[in-house]
Amino acid sequence: MADIIIKNAYILTMDPDTGDLKNGTVVIEDGRITEIGEKTSESAETVIDAKHSVVMPGLVNTHTHAAMTLFRGYADDLQLSDWLEGHIWPAEARLTAQDVYKGSLLACLEMIRSGTTSFADMYFHMDETAKAVEASGLRASLSHGLIELWNEEKGEADLKEGRRFVRAWQGAANGRIKTMYGPHAPNTCSEEFLAKVREEASRDGAGIHIHVLETEAELLAMKERYGKCSVHLLDDIGFFGPDVLAAHCVWLSDGDIEILRKRGVNVSHNAISNMKLASGIAPVHKMLEKGVNVSLGTDGCASNNNLDLFEEMKTAALLHKVNTFSPTALPARQVLEMGTVNGAKALDPETGMLKVGKKADLIILDMKKPHLTPCFDVPSHLVYSAKGSDVRTTIVNGKVLMDNYRVLVLDEQKVMEEAQKAAAELVSKVNA
Amino acid sequence: MADIIIKNAYILTMDPDTGDLKNGTVVIEDGRITEIGEKTSESAETVIDAKHSVVMPGLVNTHTHAAMTLFRGYADDLQLSDWLEGHIWPAEARLTAQDVYKGSLLACLEMIRSGTTSFADMYFHMDETAKAVEASGLRASLSHGLIELWNEEKGEADLKEGRRFVRAWQGAANGRIKTMYGPHAPNTCSEEFLAKVREEASRDGAGIHIHVLETEAELLAMKERYGKCSVHLLDDIGFFGPDVLAAHCVWLSDGDIEILRKRGVNVSHNAISNMKLASGIAPVHKMLEKGVNVSLGTDGCASNNNLDLFEEMKTAALLHKVNTFSPTALPARQVLEMGTVNGAKALDPETGMLKVGKKADLIILDMKKPHLTPCFDVPSHLVYSAKGSDVRTTIVNGKVLMDNYRVLVLDEQKVMEEAQKAAAELVSKVNA
Repeated sequence: MADIIIKNAYILTMDPDTGDLKNGTVVIEDGRITEIGEKTSESAETVIDAKHSVVMPGLVNTHTHAAMTLFRGYADDLQLSDWLEGHIWPAEARLTAQDVYKGSLLACLEMIRSGTTSFADMYFHMDETAKAVEASGLRASLSHGLIELWNEEKGEADLKEGRRFVRAWQGAANGRIKTMYGPHAPNTCSEEFLAKVREEASRDGAGIHIHVLETEAELLAMKERYGKCSVHLLDDIGFFGPDVLAAHCVWLSDGDIEILRKRGVNVSHNAISNMKLASGIAPVHKMLEKGVNVSLGTDGCASNNNLDLFEEMKTAALLHKVNTFSPTALPARQVLEMGTVNGAKALDPETGMLKVGKKADLIILDMKKPHLTPCFDVPSHLVYSAKGSDVRTTIVNGKVLMDNYRVLVLDEQKVMEEAQKAAAELVSKVNA
Repeated sequence: MADIIIKNAYILTMDPDTGDLKNGTVVIEDGRITEIGEKTSESAETVIDAKHSVVMPGLVNTHTHAAMTLFRGYADDLQLSDWLEGHIWPAEARLTAQDVYKGSLLACLEMIRSGTTSFADMYFHMDETAKAVEASGLRASLSHGLIELWNEEKGEADLKEGRRFVRAWQGAANGRIKTMYGPHAPNTCSEEFLAKVREEASRDGAGIHIHVLETEAELLAMKERYGKCSVHLLDDIGFFGPDVLAAHCVWLSDGDIEILRKRGVNVSHNAISNMKLASGIAPVHKMLEKGVNVSLGTDGCASNNNLDLFEEMKTAALLHKVNTFSPTALPARQVLEMGTVNGAKALDPETGMLKVGKKADLIILDMKKPHLTPCFDVPSHLVYSAKGSDVRTTIVNGKVLMDNYRVLVLDEQKVMEEAQKAAAELVSKVNA
């Protein structure tokens, strides 16, 4: 007997070998997909009738700072220095471990509601984010942020904590948690420190999550300091490889793109955050054309201000069309790949596709809504018309986290109230 | 006794004289707002408890083609010529009056659900769109599209139908329907025809809705034909005035912006459509700086692909930040003005603001949701975090169209089914 059968669904497998099934069945057992087809002879404890619905792989958010949900709408429409120095950093300086837990739990709740089944996070008090992931049932690749700032002592302390975290949580929560090293960025960590992190990561078999060329300021600072940009510096010290997740990558030259491709680096594109902070427009169209693995991230809620990857998919599709003056750039299926398979390639290749043997991370969208009517082409609707709020069911590792809009794993009211309270206290501390 | 009292609400009035009320009451009688304050001594038949909710003016969509909901997702990610000539025009050629009714009704349903209370439309079979507006309870400014194409006979016939429509529906549906003349664009109508339309509109006291400089192709064609751009041509023939609604205005020079300002022309900015069709980025920041009245439009569903003005607000705020490299461009309150008061100025200045004496077009958003938690700043949340699906209640002209997510004025399932059926038949006719 299987655990879950989903029937009568339009199945967007994202598997090029099988394509879509217009009316099919997915069978889940022991956390994995065991059958996909028109019908099944299996029976299961849980049978979900997905008539008028689409089943697809859960979305993968490859760059966020979950606990920053506490800063949602706290500081907007400001110059970068005022935003960071006047608001975000003072608030972060007062953030307690408990705050990080509450903010991360709120993020998990929001992701479950909007169809994200796994995410990559870099922040601090990361034990708390890991606990929130454990409690929520989501999948995540977590890293403790290492900000050396050319201070050897701080670098050592950060690296020690990063190492402890990597080892403490690797494979936890039934394998749902992976850990990575999280050196903040090439303009906040020295060359030597970055080389050391690379070494430790290789020894521990952990990936690396890093911000790369988010702003022009980083590009200029790197040229000034090293006479070369971040990508060239990282390549020269042997930092890159297919276990590296590089967030943003806005200010890339064609040569940089070639390096990222050659080294198999995974890029997380954060269209909304880059637009909101006016960082610039990443050359996503070029990267995809050259074969770089580009996935999608929301960044933290202070620069977005939500975690809805459906919004991120639409915005990315629109931005690169207008930026390249080509309405054929980033078509719907390609954007869906970025949101699913490409993200999975970066975080966990056993997810991101509905295929026998893959881990059962999937979502069900309710398509019988005015803004999804009529329906000619499901991929187009998922990218251009749907919202996170159309997700009715979220399943991770074969467990139902939300069923027909009801979150089963968290006390939703309590999570919201505690986050609201923590955020209010935090701001009153900043203002005190 | 009043008709409706909304209490315990955060009231975003958009009235600079009063500002926001953190916990207030709105009283509605005979279709108008009769009281706004902390409390009221009035009683009413309908009392809405808006705890944890925000009350704000309904959003105003200043450029759409409602019936094009039938083409939602029918043709995406194509070159403009293929999109228009290969898909949209062949489908439009087969569109019946009944189709326009069904598509328009679906659009009205979607707008009610996503918090839009009035819209400007230019299309054909406009009696049907007017009937849909009448049935749905929304407010609209409607025009029959006039596409002369330098064919005198066609111009005459179009103008005759446009004139008939203007006179037949002006002030209909209890004043909820206004009519306008709808000359398609300066590159699809001759100079003489545009001058004649201007004359007729002035005589009938009707406004004019026109596409202006949506594409670079229009700019180049105008320069070729007239040696000047659309804005200069229209100004030279005395076309402009505060009763003109110009959609898109992407390819404007600084001189064009000065003309639009001087003539008091209302501009409808369609960020998502301009991005999706790769038309370009309108100089919205400059227009606002110079004092041009810029509002927001979704355009038709074939180039968006939904009618959610919350998405449009966020996208406009993001696009102009990144395009001007300024994170302070288009701050949340200004974008809310574009979505409400600026749109109302273009279509009906008695709406767009919560103020005693104004028509009661307003919406209530449910703020107790994970993606709207915590809440420091309501305007920020409305622009950067909220979605159309957070609207729980929609009131137009003092009538409740949707109450707590339940649409009261239309049979939602029937509207969706009929639109789906009409769209499927239409496409099978195109493919036949």
